[in-house]
Amino acid sequence: MIRVGIVGATGYTGVELLRLLAVHPEVEIVCVTSRGEEGRSVAELYPSLRGKLDLRFVAPDPEQLRGCDAIFFATPHGVAQGMLRELVGESLAGGPKIIDISADFRLRDRVLWEKWYNQSHACPELIEEAVYGLPELNREAIKEANLIACPGCYPTVIQLGFIPLVEAGVVDATQLIANAATGVSGAGRAAKVDFLFPEVNDSFKAYGIGGHRHQPEIEQTLAQVAPAGVQPSVTFIPHLVPMIRGIHATLYAPLVDKSCDLQALFEERYRNEPFVDVMPAGSTPTTSSVKTSNMCRLSVFRPAQQDKVVVLAVIDNLTKGSSGQAIQCLNLMFGFEESLGINQIAIQP
Amino acid sequence: MIRVGIVGATGYTGVELLRLLAVHPEVEIVCVTSRGEEGRSVAELYPSLRGKLDLRFVAPDPEQLRGCDAIFFATPHGVAQGMLRELVGESLAGGPKIIDISADFRLRDRVLWEKWYNQSHACPELIEEAVYGLPELNREAIKEANLIACPGCYPTVIQLGFIPLVEAGVVDATQLIANAATGVSGAGRAAKVDFLFPEVNDSFKAYGIGGHRHQPEIEQTLAQVAPAGVQPSVTFIPHLVPMIRGIHATLYAPLVDKSCDLQALFEERYRNEPFVDVMPAGSTPTTSSVKTSNMCRLSVFRPAQQDKVVVLAVIDNLTKGSSGQAIQCLNLMFGFEESLGINQIAIQP
Amino acid sequence: MIRVGIVGATGYTGVELLRLLAVHPEVEIVCVTSRGEEGRSVAELYPSLRGKLDLRFVAPDPEQLRGCDAIFFATPHGVAQGMLRELVGESLAGGPKIIDISADFRLRDRVLWEKWYNQSHACPELIEEAVYGLPELNREAIKEANLIACPGCYPTVIQLGFIPLVEAGVVDATQLIANAATGVSGAGRAAKVDFLFPEVNDSFKAYGIGGHRHQPEIEQTLAQVAPAGVQPSVTFIPHLVPMIRGIHATLYAPLVDKSCDLQALFEERYRNEPFVDVMPAGSTPTTSSVKTSNMCRLSVFRPAQQDKVVVLAVIDNLTKGSSGQAIQCLNLMFGFEESLGINQIAIQP
Amino acid sequence: MIRVGIVGATGYTGVELLRLLAVHPEVEIVCVTSRGEEGRSVAELYPSLRGKLDLRFVAPDPEQLRGCDAIFFATPHGVAQGMLRELVGESLAGGPKIIDISADFRLRDRVLWEKWYNQSHACPELIEEAVYGLPELNREAIKEANLIACPGCYPTVIQLGFIPLVEAGVVDATQLIANAATGVSGAGRAAKVDFLFPEVNDSFKAYGIGGHRHQPEIEQTLAQVAPAGVQPSVTFIPHLVPMIRGIHATLYAPLVDKSCDLQALFEERYRNEPFVDVMPAGSTPTTSSVKTSNMCRLSVFRPAQQDKVVVLAVIDNLTKGSSGQAIQCLNLMFGFEESLGINQIAIQP
Repeated sequence: MIRVGIVGATGYTGVELLRLLAVHPEVEIVCVTSRGEEGRSVAELYPSLRGKLDLRFVAPDPEQLRGCDAIFFATPHGVAQGMLRELVGESLAGGPKIIDISADFRLRDRVLWEKWYNQSHACPELIEEAVYGLPELNREAIKEANLIACPGCYPTVIQLGFIPLVEAGVVDATQLIANAATGVSGAGRAAKVDFLFPEVNDSFKAYGIGGHRHQPEIEQTLAQVAPAGVQPSVTFIPHLVPMIRGIHATLYAPLVDKSCDLQALFEERYRNEPFVDVMPAGSTPTTSSVKTSNMCRLSVFRPAQQDKVVVLAVIDNLTKGSSGQAIQCLNLMFGFEESLGINQIAIQP
Repeated sequence: MIRVGIVGATGYTGVELLRLLAVHPEVEIVCVTSRGEEGRSVAELYPSLRGKLDLRFVAPDPEQLRGCDAIFFATPHGVAQGMLRELVGESLAGGPKIIDISADFRLRDRVLWEKWYNQSHACPELIEEAVYGLPELNREAIKEANLIACPGCYPTVIQLGFIPLVEAGVVDATQLIANAATGVSGAGRAAKVDFLFPEVNDSFKAYGIGGHRHQPEIEQTLAQVAPAGVQPSVTFIPHLVPMIRGIHATLYAPLVDKSCDLQALFEERYRNEPFVDVMPAGSTPTTSSVKTSNMCRLSVFRPAQQDKVVVLAVIDNLTKGSSGQAIQCLNLMFGFEESLGINQIAIQP
Repeated sequence: MIRVGIVGATGYTGVELLRLLAVHPEVEIVCVTSRGEEGRSVAELYPSLRGKLDLRFVAPDPEQLRGCDAIFFATPHGVAQGMLRELVGESLAGGPKIIDISADFRLRDRVLWEKWYNQSHACPELIEEAVYGLPELNREAIKEANLIACPGCYPTVIQLGFIPLVEAGVVDATQLIANAATGVSGAGRAAKVDFLFPEVNDSFKAYGIGGHRHQPEIEQTLAQVAPAGVQPSVTFIPHLVPMIRGIHATLYAPLVDKSCDLQALFEERYRNEPFVDVMPAGSTPTTSSVKTSNMCRLSVFRPAQQDKVVVLAVIDNLTKGSSGQAIQCLNLMFGFEESLGINQIAIQP
Repeated sequence: MIRVGIVGATGYTGVELLRLLAVHPEVEIVCVTSRGEEGRSVAELYPSLRGKLDLRFVAPDPEQLRGCDAIFFATPHGVAQGMLRELVGESLAGGPKIIDISADFRLRDRVLWEKWYNQSHACPELIEEAVYGLPELNREAIKEANLIACPGCYPTVIQLGFIPLVEAGVVDATQLIANAATGVSGAGRAAKVDFLFPEVNDSFKAYGIGGHRHQPEIEQTLAQVAPAGVQPSVTFIPHLVPMIRGIHATLYAPLVDKSCDLQALFEERYRNEPFVDVMPAGSTPTTSSVKTSNMCRLSVFRPAQQDKVVVLAVIDNLTKGSSGQAIQCLNLMFGFEESLGINQIAIQP
């Protein structure tokens, strides 16, 4: 059993961590922090945990956290980078493993981070030590990492959809379109009029047309896998769906290699992946088929007589899109079975 | 055409007033106030009104408001009573007609109001001038009123369901149960975590068990219609439904007069009411059958071999439950056809 | 007052026609047909119409229908073409005006129709008399028509979004992408497991990837407005949203004329259109902003540093997407004000 | 590991059994029957099970089923009683344990069953061998049973709410009111217009006022626990909520023993129950707090100055309300830990 702390556990990412870790056979949750809810019983805030977790929220205390084997940051961006230096001292090595679910260490280019997040980076010296926590891309590096930068929810599913195509060089990676739609939990558990039930129910809209922070993250990853000399570019339009959980990505790319067997390409790329399911040719994934599970399901199509590839891909934004994938990284870092504690079957209906 | 002002028009009650009044043939909206949105175009906040209403929110200005023929208060409780004295001067007579959609003048007993609303009443001298704006009960008084206290949403539908039974003395009015359920718009357009989409969607709960402010209002009205010497008492349990609009009341009462023809009683009581629809015997109303309309539909049952009456009644909480009924009062006060501008057919589906 | 008949009025398109026509000041509904519900009161099937419409469903009777001034077909495809020949005799002229909301006369190429709808066309001789009922494109022809082929719901909004760009030749019309999402009422009121509440709620999916019947319709219209020699091609991916009403289209096109002022182009194209609202630059439309109204709202964007145009466009699929637009055509055909009876403000919230 | 068969596994109860049993550590699913889907892969119908269960639906075959250690019937009423005689031969003893999730053996009075289910009972001789599968009432009998009649979804939650009160004799059990509301999955996975998304979303209604089959079941159980000479009577009004899963019961009873400490009564009654959670005084349960879990949460209130008890109780209708509770019985029958495989934490949000 390892000792785990969670910083900022009152949001949706936090409660999803608690749901999964409270019954993870190799994990003991020892510390759950929240400044706003300090002293309150976790089970009072989340009655679903009554009888399953007997802890109270505490204010974050570096000394206590240093006693953990692993620490999850389920905080708004800016928090992890602000706490890390004090927490880990001179070096990450030897301290608790850090798994940051926030955006703080996702972009390897500090200047780019500061531009998109509109603040200066508080801990730039650790950026290069961070490993991007997408197991399907960085499994071996994750095993050795001391600091994981978990991918964003949109980037997880969009990257999993584009990677086989871009790696293989069968599409024009400079003309990618990612049309994606998220459930409302993606907006977090903050009191905002825009996400009240009457505002979002029975309605659908696009947002963030002027530029979304997940776009440079997607392009950074695709650049890593693209053939030499290719600089991928993505037009990314997110939408809001009146559902609680789930992300659906509809990806478009101009097909360059028209002889490519797309179905075989995807099946081969993900043959050994425990959490990526390439659907049979012709079938389409629904977000409900992954609800509360850590799976990504995807399908690839070439619409009739057109030189385009269309990929459909779905995840649960709170599981594979954040907390579940973070635990997948934890499992890799500590040598547990990769799917330990995150192998739940999606809820139907 | 009369000139109408709306105080506090940014909430759901406000935008429902705007939807209905913007096309009311006898009304010109001349003034829409909001402290928080002062200077902003109404159509920018509510794009549904683009091209239909060319006004900006202004800060409330008593002088400007005094130039109106009628003023609606779509404000939180406490606001109308605070502004009224300055607005109307010595006497309500001769000034603009006041239609208060808030709770400020609903309870005729000042002490009771202060207890339930937990503040002292700022304008107690006007309480007795206020007419309770339930046309099915007070039609003639409304026509002559200078100040209308519009019923709450729950009280409207619960009272319409109980009134025929209590008036006729066929039930034991001291043992009434009102089990009711509302859509989330009833909670208003305020930024609260409890009403975020992920908190309320796909869930159902009771609330306010310790006592709801609508309970004394219901009992006050029923006392008005009950046989002499009977003091009605209601156990009122409200619930929250993951839908935007609508209230459904399931009412229970011990039947005293077992020979009563309940269907006939209800049909007779509401025979000439334009906005109360007694459904055919055996049918059950759905909230969707009144969505966006000013209708109340109800059914009455006597479950097999039991000495109980069950009434099912539905309204749209934003229309018959607040803004639509407020306009029904306006029509009565100014001598317009009672259903003018509020005769829309409910949306299906 | 004109006399109107509705064939096949039990579905969602039918009840939307009834909602709008029952209070249309120039229309008397004289005949509502349904084989399945023959003899049943319309208000029994749709309690929202209680007190508003006192009619029973009848079996379709050509003689009775010939006594109408106008007939709406709100039927599955294949029905209108099967009834029309008997109904109108030798010539459409002089008989009732026909407004077909189904797909029977949308495609001008009979062979294409038969391929996509997988049956032979029962009345091909009337195809060329049919006028495609998109007022923003064919207003003058609609005024003179005897037979209107109303556009499909997806085509309405996708065409309104693409027309300004394709007409002006500022995009590469051979590389269009239409990513669209519909509410569930678009699937109709038929008993199918796939559209049960538990199947579609809290989920999102794409469908019809192999080819959707609306694609040739969209390409036919765009070919009509494209510069000479350009054959538009659209990759069309529809999605299903857990909401009742509404369609949202996210349209992508490669920008050819990079100096084009896109906002001005759209504002100019739709300057005089009563039912197309070009939103201010930078704002995004929500489907709720048009719910139950006949408006189409749209925005046009050029995402930063990319040579793409993105158009966002929304309609209510049952109003502007079918029944509302059909009445807009009726108004034009009979010389009524174009917005008569369909000028409702969208519901908020 | 025991060998388990499931008869009629295509519905919502069936897929919930599959979700839970596919990862139950002591169960091997060996046979899944469906006449309609014979030959089809289970994972094709329910993609959530891809990679988790590699079985095809087969037609029910008594010989194959006799090779199981336990058989679940997740069938419409009438099916289990029709198959049982052939399946078990002369005696239930020695054959597979039967766990019937349908209504076939719930009522101990054959005449009552035939009246409410409107057909003759095909296997009345087994009625008295059936044990009613409510562990909180019949735990010891369940352990020894060969045939379990699982409680209905409504009866489970309503009985758990009333039992402490009726057992203790502190309420007038002849005047009980059960006002309950269910999610739409309770209506099953059958193609019916009434449960299409557009019909039920954004709406709320009561149904079954004339009498619901769960009423005699509830009264039968309460009669079993009531003080001698008391014949409990319940007015039961069910409602339909636009949510997928969950039942909420609001129970009313006249308080007879006004000195009773209701909170202590409930806490004591359920002190050792693994799946009944008595909430702290003053808090109210939400259906989301038990979603996808096997828990029942409840609260008890005595509204101010009234001689009534109000109990609020929630379950997930597909878990504690059917399949989860059926597995709870299986665990008891085979001597497994009672919570094995059904100890999941509810999903939040």
